[in-house]
Amino acid sequence: MLRGWELSAGDLEALALGAAILGTGGGGNPYIGRLRATQLLKAGFRIRVLPFDQLEDADLVVAVGGIGAPVVGIEKFEKGDECYQAMRAVERFSGKPVTALISSEIGGSNAIEPLIAAAYAGLPVVDADGMGRAFPEVQMCTYLIYGLPGAPAALADEKGNIAILSSVADEYWLEKLARTAAVDMGATAGFALAPMRGSDLKRTAVPHTLSLALKLGRLVLQARSRHLDPVSQVAGETGAQLLFEGKIQDVSRRVVKGFARGRVEIDGLRDFQRSRLTVDIQNENLVARRDGEVIASVPDLIMILDLETGEPITTELLRFGFRVAVLGLAAPEQLRTARALEVVGPRAFGYDLPYRPLGGGGWYAEH
Amino acid sequence: MLRGWELSAGDLEALALGAAILGTGGGGNPYIGRLRATQLLKAGFRIRVLPFDQLEDADLVVAVGGIGAPVVGIEKFEKGDECYQAMRAVERFSGKPVTALISSEIGGSNAIEPLIAAAYAGLPVVDADGMGRAFPEVQMCTYLIYGLPGAPAALADEKGNIAILSSVADEYWLEKLARTAAVDMGATAGFALAPMRGSDLKRTAVPHTLSLALKLGRLVLQARSRHLDPVSQVAGETGAQLLFEGKIQDVSRRVVKGFARGRVEIDGLRDFQRSRLTVDIQNENLVARRDGEVIASVPDLIMILDLETGEPITTELLRFGFRVAVLGLAAPEQLRTARALEVVGPRAFGYDLPYRPLGGGGWYAEH
Repeated sequence: MLRGWELSAGDLEALALGAAILGTGGGGNPYIGRLRATQLLKAGFRIRVLPFDQLEDADLVVAVGGIGAPVVGIEKFEKGDECYQAMRAVERFSGKPVTALISSEIGGSNAIEPLIAAAYAGLPVVDADGMGRAFPEVQMCTYLIYGLPGAPAALADEKGNIAILSSVADEYWLEKLARTAAVDMGATAGFALAPMRGSDLKRTAVPHTLSLALKLGRLVLQARSRHLDPVSQVAGETGAQLLFEGKIQDVSRRVVKGFARGRVEIDGLRDFQRSRLTVDIQNENLVARRDGEVIASVPDLIMILDLETGEPITTELLRFGFRVAVLGLAAPEQLRTARALEVVGPRAFGYDLPYRPLGGGGWYAEH
Repeated sequence: MLRGWELSAGDLEALALGAAILGTGGGGNPYIGRLRATQLLKAGFRIRVLPFDQLEDADLVVAVGGIGAPVVGIEKFEKGDECYQAMRAVERFSGKPVTALISSEIGGSNAIEPLIAAAYAGLPVVDADGMGRAFPEVQMCTYLIYGLPGAPAALADEKGNIAILSSVADEYWLEKLARTAAVDMGATAGFALAPMRGSDLKRTAVPHTLSLALKLGRLVLQARSRHLDPVSQVAGETGAQLLFEGKIQDVSRRVVKGFARGRVEIDGLRDFQRSRLTVDIQNENLVARRDGEVIASVPDLIMILDLETGEPITTELLRFGFRVAVLGLAAPEQLRTARALEVVGPRAFGYDLPYRPLGGGGWYAEH
């Protein structure tokens, strides 16, 4: 019996856009994966989504995605079945049949990669993820934050190399070993975490995020076609605050330990004239300061969108002169607990800042 | 039934010395491993050697050793059971019980590491190896040269991390992936190759090299205690040619892609006065030129020994003023075939030189 509902090519377009918005500047570009997934649909493969409330306790679910050189923008596969091969490797190693896939990271390209692996496998993708956004490292996903073991995990590349991390000292070691293996394999690899029970996912995953990303993308596409303002549509749907509108004045960017770090300076327009917003970046947009005062920070989402089209602007595409809106969206509750903030709060990224949660939360939880 | 004969603490001292001589300047320092192996003997563990002619076709043998940052001199384990853990990981992955261990590389520290793993495992170590000397990379061992699969291979560190390379595109990918994983794990890791059948080892291994290294070490120790010349004893035993005697005039050394590369210049003494020998180094001593003319090269062994004591001088210890003898020993036949020379001949190390085999071979084959 096939479970779940099918994604169409149009859904893939909207999902990729919504995932890019939730990528908050990072997460890798989902468009290449979208093209590949669309090709698979044309070739007769099916991509099915398993509603979160249809997840069964006994389901055995593998989270897959691309992992690579942490500098953004290169999450591109040569062959396309890397995540599938990685999933089969953990399945073989564990000795139990996998019943569904899931994303670790709905923001950016890893919203799409599980769909491709699922198409090859003939399995559905659970409507949920482990971040509700994008983060740069694997220990930052809720499955690991809430104690599910990441190992045995597997990496696979397009050349036929498969590495299984069968035992790891902790989740930081998992990240470290997987990251360098992926870089070795040619900058990027398909990555699969240890199979998780449905019962454990119910406790740890951020539910409904695949359909939320899809909804968000559809909303922006519709707003464009109806000549509505995409940014206010996104804010209205999600409850995100309009943190700023302005024109990019300066972008500084450098690569530190493989991570794209930088800062963007935005001079205010409209209601924000004579004000300046600074956004610190480490792959994702991390901390927003208005006239020196912190107004939003991780794990809350700081989304920089083109002021007119609502197109999300990834950190590597930020340029002088772009007119942008900056939205702040309350993170899912799963990222706001004391335990989670140790891993994904401002201090985990090296900022000596307390986390001041944005108000207006609830979008993730309402669905 | 326990198979093989037992090694004593005295044997370990001689074996470490002989292995260092066969290390031709590289292979890592065996003395730290020797101390640990000696402690194990004191604690009641046994180390047994399985004569090559007692190897059975159905034996399942795992080659283990340390792998690490290729710069020499840091092949040191923190905990001591890393190779054992790596061996158990490939055994579990393969699902068949391992019956013996073997060295990949008798030259240097990896002569000893299998003994430590074997002590923990209660298994014997086959009297053979995959190089008859030391080489810097895993694809240079005869098991892989002659087509045995290296994967599934495993790496283990002292922190509990275990990585299984379950599938590799080729043996060069095995080397690359294993090397960076090891560096990640803290510069060094225990490494185990895929289990090999006894019948395959009979076809691919260099036999008797453990006992040859032991014999060589005993010879030097005896020569010292009897005030005989250790260098001429080594030459007499092995059939090695005395290539040069002299005083080190200059040593240049740099690290290129993690490999210790360099050159040592030696001014002649005694019969070699008014002559100069240059030895190129890439971890091991690779090419010897007398007054500009190549007189020995890989895969033949170029051994630099202290002129008085016969102590092998590893490349990182070469210093101005040392008085040394340079011996050239014909490599085992397994390294001299056309197939092997593609992997371990001068061109494999970047030298545009034909391989001119040293005469006087046969030491390896006679035993």
